[in-house]
Amino acid sequence: MSSSRNVKPPVFNSLTGAIRALAMDAVQKANSGHPGAPMGMAEIAEVLWRHHLRHNPANPQWADRDRFVQSNGHGSMLIYSLLHLTGYDLSIDDLKNFRQLHSRTPGHPEVGYTPGVETTTGPLGQGITNAVGMALAEKILADSFNRPGHAIVDHSTYVFLGDGCLMEGISHEACSLAGTWGLGKLVAFYDDNNISIDGHVDGWFTDDTPKRFEAYGWHVVRDVQGHDPVEIEAAIQAAKAETGRPTLICCKTIIGAGAPNKQDSHDVHGAPLGAAEIEAARAYIGWNHPAFEIPADVYAAWDARAKGAALETEWNTRFAAYAAEFPELAAEFTRRTAGDLPADWAAHVESVLAQVIAKGETIATRKASQNSIEAYAPKLPELLGGSADLAGSNLTLWSGAKGVSKATGGNYVYYGVREFGMAAIANGIALHGGLIPYTATFLMFSEYARNALRMAALMKLRQIFVFTHDSIGLGEDGPTHQPVEQTASLRLIPNMDVWRPCDTTESAVAWAAAIERKNGPSSLAFSRQNLPFQQRNAEQVENIRRGGYVLSESGNASQANPLQAVIIATGSEVALAMAAQKQLADDGIAVRVVSMPSTNVFDRQDGAYRADVLPKGLPRVAVEAGVTDGWYKYVGLEGAVIGLDRFGESAPAGELFKYFGITTDAVVAAVKKVIA
Amino acid sequence: MSSSRNVKPPVFNSLTGAIRALAMDAVQKANSGHPGAPMGMAEIAEVLWRHHLRHNPANPQWADRDRFVQSNGHGSMLIYSLLHLTGYDLSIDDLKNFRQLHSRTPGHPEVGYTPGVETTTGPLGQGITNAVGMALAEKILADSFNRPGHAIVDHSTYVFLGDGCLMEGISHEACSLAGTWGLGKLVAFYDDNNISIDGHVDGWFTDDTPKRFEAYGWHVVRDVQGHDPVEIEAAIQAAKAETGRPTLICCKTIIGAGAPNKQDSHDVHGAPLGAAEIEAARAYIGWNHPAFEIPADVYAAWDARAKGAALETEWNTRFAAYAAEFPELAAEFTRRTAGDLPADWAAHVESVLAQVIAKGETIATRKASQNSIEAYAPKLPELLGGSADLAGSNLTLWSGAKGVSKATGGNYVYYGVREFGMAAIANGIALHGGLIPYTATFLMFSEYARNALRMAALMKLRQIFVFTHDSIGLGEDGPTHQPVEQTASLRLIPNMDVWRPCDTTESAVAWAAAIERKNGPSSLAFSRQNLPFQQRNAEQVENIRRGGYVLSESGNASQANPLQAVIIATGSEVALAMAAQKQLADDGIAVRVVSMPSTNVFDRQDGAYRADVLPKGLPRVAVEAGVTDGWYKYVGLEGAVIGLDRFGESAPAGELFKYFGITTDAVVAAVKKVIA
Repeated sequence: MSSSRNVKPPVFNSLTGAIRALAMDAVQKANSGHPGAPMGMAEIAEVLWRHHLRHNPANPQWADRDRFVQSNGHGSMLIYSLLHLTGYDLSIDDLKNFRQLHSRTPGHPEVGYTPGVETTTGPLGQGITNAVGMALAEKILADSFNRPGHAIVDHSTYVFLGDGCLMEGISHEACSLAGTWGLGKLVAFYDDNNISIDGHVDGWFTDDTPKRFEAYGWHVVRDVQGHDPVEIEAAIQAAKAETGRPTLICCKTIIGAGAPNKQDSHDVHGAPLGAAEIEAARAYIGWNHPAFEIPADVYAAWDARAKGAALETEWNTRFAAYAAEFPELAAEFTRRTAGDLPADWAAHVESVLAQVIAKGETIATRKASQNSIEAYAPKLPELLGGSADLAGSNLTLWSGAKGVSKATGGNYVYYGVREFGMAAIANGIALHGGLIPYTATFLMFSEYARNALRMAALMKLRQIFVFTHDSIGLGEDGPTHQPVEQTASLRLIPNMDVWRPCDTTESAVAWAAAIERKNGPSSLAFSRQNLPFQQRNAEQVENIRRGGYVLSESGNASQANPLQAVIIATGSEVALAMAAQKQLADDGIAVRVVSMPSTNVFDRQDGAYRADVLPKGLPRVAVEAGVTDGWYKYVGLEGAVIGLDRFGESAPAGELFKYFGITTDAVVAAVKKVIA
Repeated sequence: MSSSRNVKPPVFNSLTGAIRALAMDAVQKANSGHPGAPMGMAEIAEVLWRHHLRHNPANPQWADRDRFVQSNGHGSMLIYSLLHLTGYDLSIDDLKNFRQLHSRTPGHPEVGYTPGVETTTGPLGQGITNAVGMALAEKILADSFNRPGHAIVDHSTYVFLGDGCLMEGISHEACSLAGTWGLGKLVAFYDDNNISIDGHVDGWFTDDTPKRFEAYGWHVVRDVQGHDPVEIEAAIQAAKAETGRPTLICCKTIIGAGAPNKQDSHDVHGAPLGAAEIEAARAYIGWNHPAFEIPADVYAAWDARAKGAALETEWNTRFAAYAAEFPELAAEFTRRTAGDLPADWAAHVESVLAQVIAKGETIATRKASQNSIEAYAPKLPELLGGSADLAGSNLTLWSGAKGVSKATGGNYVYYGVREFGMAAIANGIALHGGLIPYTATFLMFSEYARNALRMAALMKLRQIFVFTHDSIGLGEDGPTHQPVEQTASLRLIPNMDVWRPCDTTESAVAWAAAIERKNGPSSLAFSRQNLPFQQRNAEQVENIRRGGYVLSESGNASQANPLQAVIIATGSEVALAMAAQKQLADDGIAVRVVSMPSTNVFDRQDGAYRADVLPKGLPRVAVEAGVTDGWYKYVGLEGAVIGLDRFGESAPAGELFKYFGITTDAVVAAVKKVIA
């Protein structure tokens, strides 16, 4: 067994016994799940949750609660057991329904399904990264709202993580930043059980993890016996005493501790123990109760409701004093915590749009994006910007931007070259509440962040991803940097709204829509190169928000010269469509140009509107400087798509559009072909 | 300036002057590019390339050459200058065409465009990761082929990298593994210039990098003055003396060293210096030659052709001796280095297929995949397997699998939980040659590796990605693990062949096609759950390789009862299509079932074949347990798609298919609707 690692086995008791039994029994009943981590982390969980975690089971939304993240999400029965035992609205029947359709106890912890689950975990490394975001949000909000004698934002973030999280690259990005930012209220517990799915990790994970974290500037508590409550308690005390650095508590544990024949092997990681082993475990840990039965005294010992209510009441009292002294700040805190936009937001957007339209600038949409930030951000102190080391290229800074640092809060985060970490940290910030994060990189490197974008969509987070340099239009940097399939690919993520604006007006509308969207993230794709301003009437401006709309009807469309086709375009290709329309009109062919900045939003419109924009029977041509597959949904088998189904090349942008045949002439020819 | 960092400035000379001048001038001429890194690393490059790198400019394919990777690929003028100066087939005119269409000097180094460029770099962190793969390949091949007294595989891998690479998470994954594997012939030079695009890195990159790499088990040479040839030389000597650990040489440098007014600032990172600064730099570094003119004596001092030819000749002599003593091994080495499959490969595939068909097993396609590996691998010692800690779930091990470790070579790599690192390491292995890597994870976590998959496609690498648990069919693990948009999204990557087989036969064919494909990667999506075997005649078996084919014509299709519709399906949904066909036949409706395991391959078939499979005018219904958008390309506006445009849920798999309406009844109903 673990002798070579000198792991002290647990002294079993009924408090930890309840966790172990619930984990074994629920996984067995579901015939699916991961008992190893809950059983191995029972003592750590008991000490943290019974003696340190400041939370109120009756109100999982209490603003100043400590955040708890189980980054090793496969061990979900651990957090479900803890939530149940401490008194959250999660019944024993809910636990019996573990991993069943529509239960409150899905296979992995999912935010929104279970009261008390702060983030959805399972994809390894992202939980700890979300936690870094939560701790950063706490730091920034404390800096914004706390006043001498009034620490209304003052909570910790606790994370459980395992070997898998530490192997993932994103843990490097997140933990490096946590060190740089000096997140002293972040405490991570490393479940060092020396096992991953393929077995003992010695063959593939030989890092000196404590040394690695010291290199990041963390406070590391080494060699903690993870089944010894006294050592765990001392480690947590040390973590609390350290206020200038995040703490990693390295806990040596035995995976599946309590399963006498299977513990300390990967057999307990991801499969039910089986009836025989569970029976043996019951005897081994001294748990003499039937499945899903917890004695009243055990419930009583775990119950956190009275203490939690007192904690929140005490905070409410403090917040009332704060509100008396700083009524405006308190109102602002309440507004931002609720996720509400300022009362005059809609009017502000109107006036911004009016100015943008009046200016009618021909600029790159990345510049239009920056102008949008500049216009909206002063109204929205909750807007927290950032870029993965491309501030000057993504154009995400604005005149009021103030960098977050170890010493201070701010409203702009220099994430360094860490796209995945950035996106998942921003997910944590959005989950924390009180801030609306926007982040940025080149559209190409959305790929580095891909699964965090998906997690934002799955968790329905208000998150804004700014992706610039959105096509071969970026030119000389070549195919490694030229998006071809990225916009199309982002559109496939359920609940992700992708916008690819064609000018300053669409850019300003896309930004407003993204800010206003409360139930999901938005990806905004912007050009590197200048794009011409398009004229619109008021109805057309209004319809931008519907994702697709008639931007231009051919000048000579009439009964005598009826519409013959529709050209659908996005972003930089809208100008090509407009030029093609003109050229076709000269040939007596009337066509409509539909600008479709967001296919996702357009698809959500009612059928009547969609049919109005894309009338049945009218041949269609789509043009977008990217892969063509997705456009057949709109043009059908008889339509045509002008795009790029291969990688780009390194050359000046203008040459590339010609070389790849994404030109006005090509659009004209395609239209003539589909109407022939 | 850099005084606080105590960086000793360069003593300029004509050797490094040539690099600096070429970098400045080419970037200026292109009016685009990154002069900072080439100018900052000129001394490091000079010492390495003139005194250590074993290469032959006349033969960039020499099997035992040292590999050189510029992971900070934006500084491409560095490697182009080096290749030009040392005598590769890269003329001064090629350098003048820097970043122009179809030049041999694209914006970032691209393998296949420029002789001597070993890998395509630019997406940060992946170059060092490719290099880890190359060094691993060298170790494995040395273990396989070298014999006492015959070290025919014996070369080093050198990497240049910058702050950006070290911030990226993938550097953690790759360098951790390099330490675990003890890759003693890997030497990385860290261009520690303290600058990234957003400016001085102190605000976002405060790692103690030497300590971090020591934590990975690397040999670290600290505090090397990166402009001092003597210190660089000593560091390389130390690296060569260390054979059991990879070496990181930490070089303090001044970015853009030689540009008197702009050096040591991010202004030199990614933009031309401008005519005035270039003129000032010429004076500052004592380079009195016009743009793109290199004096003969400088060329002579750099010329590596004679030395390179001698090195290769010496190796050829040694290889001849090896061939004399071990003719079979030598022939095998030659075959594998050329990337040729064994002579009897086609016959072997035939016989494997015959056995698979004879067995007619109903098993999960992930199991069918394992059976394919088991059948093919004994013929292919070049097959190098692996999984990101999911060997037992991906089913990637086979009876002859032997794990690679620090102590030995082998044919199976335990990558740990490092999907991105795994894929990019495998890219390096494929680039090295002599091995065909296959790697594996859950299909969902293809997202973590996303950009490395793209890079494999861009570089046209023979790489096989095994992605199991390919739909909601994985069941209880829930939406974080259930692919919905992943297969569709992989199909969008240009030059990526995606296969989603429906049974054992298609699985065996997909594997064979992936192994045989020399100009690009393949992604194989396999089910967790059992899928029924489908009967086929010989022609149908043959047509699997065409990506899509008629699997079944309705039994009662006839003149009197003509075909009314086509059902297109992939993977687990083929069985639904077959059941729907039967049910429709009972209602007197004759339909065709097209199995389309690879849309990408089908799209490459000639128009006649495609029209034969999908006859014009016949209504179509597609069914696949994933997002529907891509299927309109095949079914058009009048067809129907049965799929899943939302996230999954945690529940047993059977329940999920019912809940989401991916059922035989739904397919039947859709067919009846489209033919109505």
